[in-house]
Amino acid sequence: MEYPEMQGPVCPMPLKHDQKIVMGHGSGGKMSQDLIQQVFQSEFTSTALLAGNDFAYLAPPPSQNVRMVTSVDAHIVSPLFFPGGDIGKLSICGTVNDVAVSGAIPQYITAAFILEEGFEIDTLQKIVHSMKLTAEEAGVEIVSGDTKVVEKGKADGVFITTTGIGYVPEGILIHGANAQPGDKIIISGNIGDHGIAVLAARGDLGFQTNVESDTAPLNHMIKELLLAAPNVHVLRDPTRGGLATTLNEIAVQSNVGMLIDENTVPIQQAVRAASEMLGFDPLYIANEGKLIVIVPEQEAQAALKAIQTNQYGQNATIIGEVTTKNPKRVLLQTYIGGTRILDVMSGEMLPRIC
Amino acid sequence: MEYPEMQGPVCPMPLKHDQKIVMGHGSGGKMSQDLIQQVFQSEFTSTALLAGNDFAYLAPPPSQNVRMVTSVDAHIVSPLFFPGGDIGKLSICGTVNDVAVSGAIPQYITAAFILEEGFEIDTLQKIVHSMKLTAEEAGVEIVSGDTKVVEKGKADGVFITTTGIGYVPEGILIHGANAQPGDKIIISGNIGDHGIAVLAARGDLGFQTNVESDTAPLNHMIKELLLAAPNVHVLRDPTRGGLATTLNEIAVQSNVGMLIDENTVPIQQAVRAASEMLGFDPLYIANEGKLIVIVPEQEAQAALKAIQTNQYGQNATIIGEVTTKNPKRVLLQTYIGGTRILDVMSGEMLPRIC
Repeated sequence: MEYPEMQGPVCPMPLKHDQKIVMGHGSGGKMSQDLIQQVFQSEFTSTALLAGNDFAYLAPPPSQNVRMVTSVDAHIVSPLFFPGGDIGKLSICGTVNDVAVSGAIPQYITAAFILEEGFEIDTLQKIVHSMKLTAEEAGVEIVSGDTKVVEKGKADGVFITTTGIGYVPEGILIHGANAQPGDKIIISGNIGDHGIAVLAARGDLGFQTNVESDTAPLNHMIKELLLAAPNVHVLRDPTRGGLATTLNEIAVQSNVGMLIDENTVPIQQAVRAASEMLGFDPLYIANEGKLIVIVPEQEAQAALKAIQTNQYGQNATIIGEVTTKNPKRVLLQTYIGGTRILDVMSGEMLPRIC
Repeated sequence: MEYPEMQGPVCPMPLKHDQKIVMGHGSGGKMSQDLIQQVFQSEFTSTALLAGNDFAYLAPPPSQNVRMVTSVDAHIVSPLFFPGGDIGKLSICGTVNDVAVSGAIPQYITAAFILEEGFEIDTLQKIVHSMKLTAEEAGVEIVSGDTKVVEKGKADGVFITTTGIGYVPEGILIHGANAQPGDKIIISGNIGDHGIAVLAARGDLGFQTNVESDTAPLNHMIKELLLAAPNVHVLRDPTRGGLATTLNEIAVQSNVGMLIDENTVPIQQAVRAASEMLGFDPLYIANEGKLIVIVPEQEAQAALKAIQTNQYGQNATIIGEVTTKNPKRVLLQTYIGGTRILDVMSGEMLPRIC
């Protein structure tokens, strides 16, 4: 077969700063390549990603005796930017934390973007940069990505789905069915900040507040915690549904009861005030940088101290204990001294907060 | 602390068959739990998923000497159902294939659903069932999931993002930068079926056609191929951008030229006819069950035979070869005997086909 000589590769067209996403950016052709090179590959520089394959190679875990762990989270928060965070930071933290609550070291992240036609590329760049910074802080590598575009009115700016992959070091067994009667229950800090911050950013509060989201990667805190208290039984981050719903999930999984002392649950005054005005219970408001720790009593103080030493855990407190009575139920000893069932959230309270 | 005895756990409310998704299904509370139990956990029965943790445990790969592989894909196809497939089948096949084109055995899938308020739960159940069947055929386990809900008009029914995880057996090294001059280029069957089938399902063709999407999991075909031709250099599934764009990507990655003989590219008559009427080139139309194989000449016939033996590869053909001339360019010897550059697709052609 004969054929003529041709010139070299085509250079990508630089994206203009005022450019918006068009359907062609999702085509898989030249416009997709330009977007990927100039928005994503300028921030995400993993060799696995830059290799340009449809897949990413990962190192196997350090030993055959470890468990690997994965977790997926779709992020649809509205608005995309809020005090203390944005959808990019959230999309890394949410998944890093879900992997880390197994006691695992999170290593790798995959990220898929669903973009709405007309979305500003400048805004996308800010979000991608925020993901990069958060991934650096957490020490995870973004190894695989995908970008799709839908017509205007068929999405809401951008949705980001991330999957995390990591491994649990030998000797650690932490999961939701592992709570034991007598264990102490710790919360790593003030609850309700994230939900109130997002609501405020929407302008839905009807008044001003200075509450910032607590969005944070908790994997370093968890690593330090497990050095101080290696026999931790359960870890979980109380996101959607808040502290109350998450505790209920653990109570059901572990077939135990729980007793929480409302007086000890740390809630900052501005969150308490906003919740009261809106008729919300902070116990059901989402958090994105808090950790529930269920730990044998003899390690509780060491655990508490380790958490308090971390920048994200300064207000950590013991809030209750695991009981044999009332299996699968969480009871709350209230401010006024009574005791009531703290049930799971039944329906919608604050939609699109993560 | 004292507290009264309470009764046992609350049973989930059965979902009615005419029910629609409401914002509360994304709250993380009781309604979310009901949806997960009754729609997802009735089909996806992985112990990792049923354990109810935020993470899933995975077995480590069989040896320290293998590479692990991951890949992510967001699926936004419109309409959700089309001849030969649906978004559920697509969401498994797309990711299974992206993992398998590394030569890997795909093992695990994570899946995140973004649902639009008002979406029918019956329809969601059909999609989830289709995912289950496809995952069974591919031999992959759905280990982790997430469900979010956005307001009506902020999404388009359902978007599904999947991440796949697998491992490459020892001795296999297949990636896009590995094409060598002299290699033969095989396509595993007729091209363009998927794009035309989706377009027809939208009613956008203006005429009837009986073309069905080729959506299929190709991992078993790839396994059989690698037994017959263990020195395969490159595998890739030509999805968005079609055969032409995908070949260009490989030519750039491998810094080689390619020469494709248009006469040998298998295209079914109905696809050719539809493309001509619409002014499309089938070489740029998406496929979801086709494989490009780049293989040393001495293994080309064995590779071809192995593919043709598989149910999804009966029309496999050698369509060209890798060259030293014109690096990073794909040349097409046309029907009429001339030779032209086959460039990457420049912008949008068929939006939302995967």
